[in-house]
Amino acid sequence: MKLLEEKIRKDGKVFEGNILKVDSFVNHQIDVKFMNEIGKEFKRLFENEEVTKILTIEASGIGIACIVAQYFDVPVLFAKKAKTVNIAGDVYTSKVESFTHKRVYDIIVSKEFLHAGDKVLIIDDFLAQGSALCGLIKLIKDANATVVGAGIVIEKAYQAGGKLVRDMGVRVESLAKIQSMSPNGTIEFVD
Amino acid sequence: MKLLEEKIRKDGKVFEGNILKVDSFVNHQIDVKFMNEIGKEFKRLFENEEVTKILTIEASGIGIACIVAQYFDVPVLFAKKAKTVNIAGDVYTSKVESFTHKRVYDIIVSKEFLHAGDKVLIIDDFLAQGSALCGLIKLIKDANATVVGAGIVIEKAYQAGGKLVRDMGVRVESLAKIQSMSPNGTIEFVD
Repeated sequence: MKLLEEKIRKDGKVFEGNILKVDSFVNHQIDVKFMNEIGKEFKRLFENEEVTKILTIEASGIGIACIVAQYFDVPVLFAKKAKTVNIAGDVYTSKVESFTHKRVYDIIVSKEFLHAGDKVLIIDDFLAQGSALCGLIKLIKDANATVVGAGIVIEKAYQAGGKLVRDMGVRVESLAKIQSMSPNGTIEFVD
Repeated sequence: MKLLEEKIRKDGKVFEGNILKVDSFVNHQIDVKFMNEIGKEFKRLFENEEVTKILTIEASGIGIACIVAQYFDVPVLFAKKAKTVNIAGDVYTSKVESFTHKRVYDIIVSKEFLHAGDKVLIIDDFLAQGSALCGLIKLIKDANATVVGAGIVIEKAYQAGGKLVRDMGVRVESLAKIQSMSPNGTIEFVD
């Protein structure tokens, strides 16, 4: 998506340690008008799929997922990072490793909101190692629901996650695929 | 907002310990179509105000804020719960007490995205003791920006937060004000 690549080049900031900050429009401040363009693009890409639910993960996926969901006319479900072991009610759980925060945490969704027969589109802001995406896929499979695919805003294509998930047979559509980036500000995208 | 009161009566669940669960449409699964009705209502209530930014707090405020922001045509900024002390760059901070999770945590917003001259509408899902709302107001004041008001989906009107914040001179508009509720399912709203 050219518009997104231009926006990342213009407003993204690259820092040492493989960090791309897009917090002016994606994951701290959210450019809601721009997110509507993202929503239209995901709708175009997945328009032949029947989608009954959009699944994302807190926190930065939620805003994007809600805007995208308007184009599919379905509810959003966001996986929560479990804060306590004592969760009321029945939940599906999986483990996600955060490389940014260097820890493993449990994510949960209530069984009440994910059912066999659901056709689930996953939406998230970033795909790098793929840990969050694999965790979300596991939740969907545990519910005997169907993974329609994953719509990712920015994929770090030089990391392992994209191949890992596509090799599982899951359709992954990333609107911007970064081939390389460096702290001097150079960002190269996959053609 | 009658539509919201009906929805809470129909889909909300009251549990022991002053807990109202609305996670089928507000803060786990999100009914995006219904949130658009909420967005229209906040726009109607604040239509005479100039709003330059919507501020909320992760995680459950984000989805609502993004939908609401579409009616004001402004970006959303969400305060993050600080995970580490070493935050890169300059931030405004305040402390918020979570009564649900029985802990105090720091919230932050980047100074880059909140400026003197901003006219900020706060959006959140719940108002009870008012700790999150006071924390957000402090961030805005620290930035020398203006608090236009707070748009709350559900206020527990029998708790102290609403009076506390209104007594500070902040306009608070809550779309549903709960007067009382009990685990047998009875929910009474303020007229």
